Amino acid sequence: MTLLPPPHRYEYEGSGPAIYVDSFATIRAETDLTGVPADAEKVAVRMIHGTGQTDLVKDLVIHPGLAGAARTALETGAPIFTDAHMVASGVTRARLPRENDVICMLRDERVPGLATAWGTTRSAAAVSLWGDRLEGALVAIGNAPTALFHLLELIADGGPRPAAIVGVPVGFIGAAESKEALASFAADTGINVPFVTVHGRRGGSAMAASAVNALAQEKE
Amino acid sequence: MTLLPPPHRYEYEGSGPAIYVDSFATIRAETDLTGVPADAEKVAVRMIHGTGQTDLVKDLVIHPGLAGAARTALETGAPIFTDAHMVASGVTRARLPRENDVICMLRDERVPGLATAWGTTRSAAAVSLWGDRLEGALVAIGNAPTALFHLLELIADGGPRPAAIVGVPVGFIGAAESKEALASFAADTGINVPFVTVHGRRGGSAMAASAVNALAQEKE
Repeated sequence: MTLLPPPHRYEYEGSGPAIYVDSFATIRAETDLTGVPADAEKVAVRMIHGTGQTDLVKDLVIHPGLAGAARTALETGAPIFTDAHMVASGVTRARLPRENDVICMLRDERVPGLATAWGTTRSAAAVSLWGDRLEGALVAIGNAPTALFHLLELIADGGPRPAAIVGVPVGFIGAAESKEALASFAADTGINVPFVTVHGRRGGSAMAASAVNALAQEKE
Repeated sequence: MTLLPPPHRYEYEGSGPAIYVDSFATIRAETDLTGVPADAEKVAVRMIHGTGQTDLVKDLVIHPGLAGAARTALETGAPIFTDAHMVASGVTRARLPRENDVICMLRDERVPGLATAWGTTRSAAAVSLWGDRLEGALVAIGNAPTALFHLLELIADGGPRPAAIVGVPVGFIGAAESKEALASFAADTGINVPFVTVHGRRGGSAMAASAVNALAQEKE
């Protein structure tokens, strides 16, 4: 196999680091970040980066304690629980301060049986398998509204409390409602868990991973 | 560990299959799909599903040969090459007709050296490692504009031709330009490779995987 670079037919930036720098500068030039907590600005920027849409900022809801709580948790070795393998795949391991575990339980052999028995999705059933390690962990939900609803129900019911929740399931059925439940969870239950979410239908695995990658370290 | 379902505090649809059916019905009710090739309608619907945005349809560009070429390739056992592990992770293996290989070369040990030597990104360098198996394969690029540019340059330079290209890199630097290059590739070079892309900055790993999952089989 010949490994030759193709002749450049197109003009484009080929330096990975330069692309990141230019991308973040473009986002900052085009986005009004005044409503974002100062220590979570890079979280907003990276979430916008992952979607290609600066107007995401108007739908973002970031708890003022999010960045501090998530970073402290990761720096003390807390695991990251995700609802989807895509989210776990998007977490840049080199950014994690303590080689933190990144865990998705969706393929656990108990999941299909629990989902059937409980009349819920496999994504939601898998949340119950996070168990006591959920206490103090960082949660990132980017796919399933049912997983976010199930998590909030577990916490409200006296279960383990995560340090922070990235809650951005995407889609047309239940996604917006699950994110509203997250945004109003402290008011509804008196339980104050720092979070980031997005009003409406937008979200997704890439957005969830982007938020985690921003929370993992200060360096952009 | 007690495995009890939490008491339902919220009203939500808990059936995975019902969520899919309702989601696709909502998308069809809200979206004008008249500009989409008939045999690629499910591709558009699934890409909208993955982003939560019905207005994606106005930016979609789908080659009339896309669905036929991609499905035939997969049914004859062609591999799927992706630029990012997240894309590979999002491909639902159960939907693939021939247990097709899903390949991302980004972590190959040759990649960092090639990227440095060629002054390009690791994502672009990894494309060259696809080698002769690229001939007749399905390509899915959801992350790196440089990977899409590099692929087009390889093809224009006489390299192996994939059966079809899902080309939806996301972002602020080069993404829109790389997708324009894909959309005008046949006109620019005389080489006609079926594709799907999206004008502008939107795209991403989830969108790329959604398109592949729709192309993998007729069943929605």
